[in-house]
Amino acid sequence: MSLDAFAPVATRGPVRVVGTGLLGASVGLALTTRGVDVVLHDPSRTALALARDVGAGRLPGADDAPVTLVVVAAPPDVTADVVLAELTANPGAVVTDLASVKGNVLDALRAAGADLTRYVGSHPMAGRERSGPAAALPDLFVGRPWVLTDSGSSSREALLAVRDLAADLGAVPVPMDPRTHDAAVAVVSHVPQVVASLVAARLRDAPAAALDLSGQGLRDVTRLAAGDAALWTSILAANADEVRDVLVDLRADLDRVITALGVAGALAQLGTAGDNAAAALGVLARAIADGNAGVARIPGKHGGTPRAYEAVTVLVPDAPGELARLLTDVGAAGVNLEDLQLEHASGRPVGMAAIWVLPGRVGHLQTELTARGWRLAS
Amino acid sequence: MSLDAFAPVATRGPVRVVGTGLLGASVGLALTTRGVDVVLHDPSRTALALARDVGAGRLPGADDAPVTLVVVAAPPDVTADVVLAELTANPGAVVTDLASVKGNVLDALRAAGADLTRYVGSHPMAGRERSGPAAALPDLFVGRPWVLTDSGSSSREALLAVRDLAADLGAVPVPMDPRTHDAAVAVVSHVPQVVASLVAARLRDAPAAALDLSGQGLRDVTRLAAGDAALWTSILAANADEVRDVLVDLRADLDRVITALGVAGALAQLGTAGDNAAAALGVLARAIADGNAGVARIPGKHGGTPRAYEAVTVLVPDAPGELARLLTDVGAAGVNLEDLQLEHASGRPVGMAAIWVLPGRVGHLQTELTARGWRLAS
Repeated sequence: MSLDAFAPVATRGPVRVVGTGLLGASVGLALTTRGVDVVLHDPSRTALALARDVGAGRLPGADDAPVTLVVVAAPPDVTADVVLAELTANPGAVVTDLASVKGNVLDALRAAGADLTRYVGSHPMAGRERSGPAAALPDLFVGRPWVLTDSGSSSREALLAVRDLAADLGAVPVPMDPRTHDAAVAVVSHVPQVVASLVAARLRDAPAAALDLSGQGLRDVTRLAAGDAALWTSILAANADEVRDVLVDLRADLDRVITALGVAGALAQLGTAGDNAAAALGVLARAIADGNAGVARIPGKHGGTPRAYEAVTVLVPDAPGELARLLTDVGAAGVNLEDLQLEHASGRPVGMAAIWVLPGRVGHLQTELTARGWRLAS
Repeated sequence: MSLDAFAPVATRGPVRVVGTGLLGASVGLALTTRGVDVVLHDPSRTALALARDVGAGRLPGADDAPVTLVVVAAPPDVTADVVLAELTANPGAVVTDLASVKGNVLDALRAAGADLTRYVGSHPMAGRERSGPAAALPDLFVGRPWVLTDSGSSSREALLAVRDLAADLGAVPVPMDPRTHDAAVAVVSHVPQVVASLVAARLRDAPAAALDLSGQGLRDVTRLAAGDAALWTSILAANADEVRDVLVDLRADLDRVITALGVAGALAQLGTAGDNAAAALGVLARAIADGNAGVARIPGKHGGTPRAYEAVTVLVPDAPGELARLLTDVGAAGVNLEDLQLEHASGRPVGMAAIWVLPGRVGHLQTELTARGWRLAS
């Protein structure tokens, strides 16, 4: 579902967007699409011109009315300074920022004596592989959680203005205090990024023959490791304490696993078993079981019950239109596809499509696909 | 592409399959489909009967000819004992096993004085989320790497028999010595499993509100964490030394990141910057950059150039047939889909489909999809 350009909007312009990268330009584009007047600013003339050209808003004019809302979409390490400057320059406006860490921005504003009644921190959980205004998309925030952080002094008017902005952009407003937010993103976003990078770094010196045995599991674990180093350095530094706390706990678990592997390896060489070996295996089993328990807590699609779907796996020839033909057949069977994973085999042009459907539909789908000549793997 | 039941096979029966779980039953099913006589054995009468019923082979008879090939598909911790027993019981047969760690099996066989001329270790890189004979699939190995490990004393006849088996099942034979194999799977499979479990374990005590901010990145990093604890304990113990070596290196990197985060956090509270802060940020940037370098080495689809494709991202309404309609339009545009990723938004019925195509086809595909009314995100 895309943004409905004809639905009513609560946000009134002029809205000033400071920083016209992917997020800022997307905010501008979405608001402009809905008829809201958006004034753009960026220290880079190129980024500014590009944002204007993609329709994210206009350049400031001489007779502009005072802005009602400022959206700061600046890099994390300069966000507090920009918010402070905007609060001062626009004394009648509510100011929000989109930085992915919230506590450090608020601390800096408080230390600088900023007017916190007019400030509400935001963090829309949206992004793309591409960056910059050319990648902007009016639908970028549709369906995404948009965290709203009360400064502790935020006025009701300011809180509602930023909540309206999130809702106008199709996002799901999620009120959360800054510390809770920062602890949350440490565990669900920043630590996974660090660990994906650490696992991927181990591949640098691995023989090419080892890489040839790579499967979908390795690809999944390391996908985040392709992230931008400068951006992630800035994010990790801004949330250093929270990320460190989680990593220290993770390291304690890792230490136990390393010790257990050492015991298991040494005893295997001695050819002995017994209580020590059993204890070492127990530590390994516990580490995997704890992971089972943790992963089961991740909400499924649309925030629904985790792992509520079952997969029917089908072999798909690697030719144009084959996957479309499969999904057409799934649709013709009257079964709604809840999720889809493609897995490719190394060295041969064949793919496996895991079609996730409601458990009650598995048997019917299997029958229908088999009747249509598909090779099933379940 | 599925297994061609009419292509010639080199393997001659009777083949004895010991252990009729997912892998053993799939080997039996594939061979039986090709007309090869397969005799099944499993200590579990239930698993044995189920494997026979799904068509994986037959039970032993009184007048059976001597088997030519034994495939041991037993749990890792009993594999060596079973291989030894089969070598003894079938003095004319070649014996292979499918265990995911190879060095410890060979060590145990050598220590027991086994006839290593008739033994070749295997590791087909294939698996499924489901286990047991009911999940068996004749096409399970099609297109997958199948590692063949020379015992050091394996006869030419034995090596060719197991290579023929792999080729008959549609797999890609990959000769590799046992130590190289074990080091390879440590870095591309076992360590990613451990780390996925450790990250997922951190979610156990996280507040539900934190989990609500979960995105695709967390799902990717932790997907493996749903793996079976007993099986993985056995695999990790069997490859303890190699896994430990990689984890120790990973821990050294982790220690540096934790120290750098500690410095960055402390200096931020003091409000000071300077050389120490710059050094801490440098460590963080280096960790991410090393991950960039490592992930770039993972081969892409079909073992081709890594990351040779570009994505066109499209918003897809969550209704039956919509994804099929999109892929039909991709096919109608004459563009071959190289990979597909679906991303779901939390709380709203909208999905994003990232369609990976050759870079030279991006512009054309964007034009065609836009003309057909699709909302693009790139």
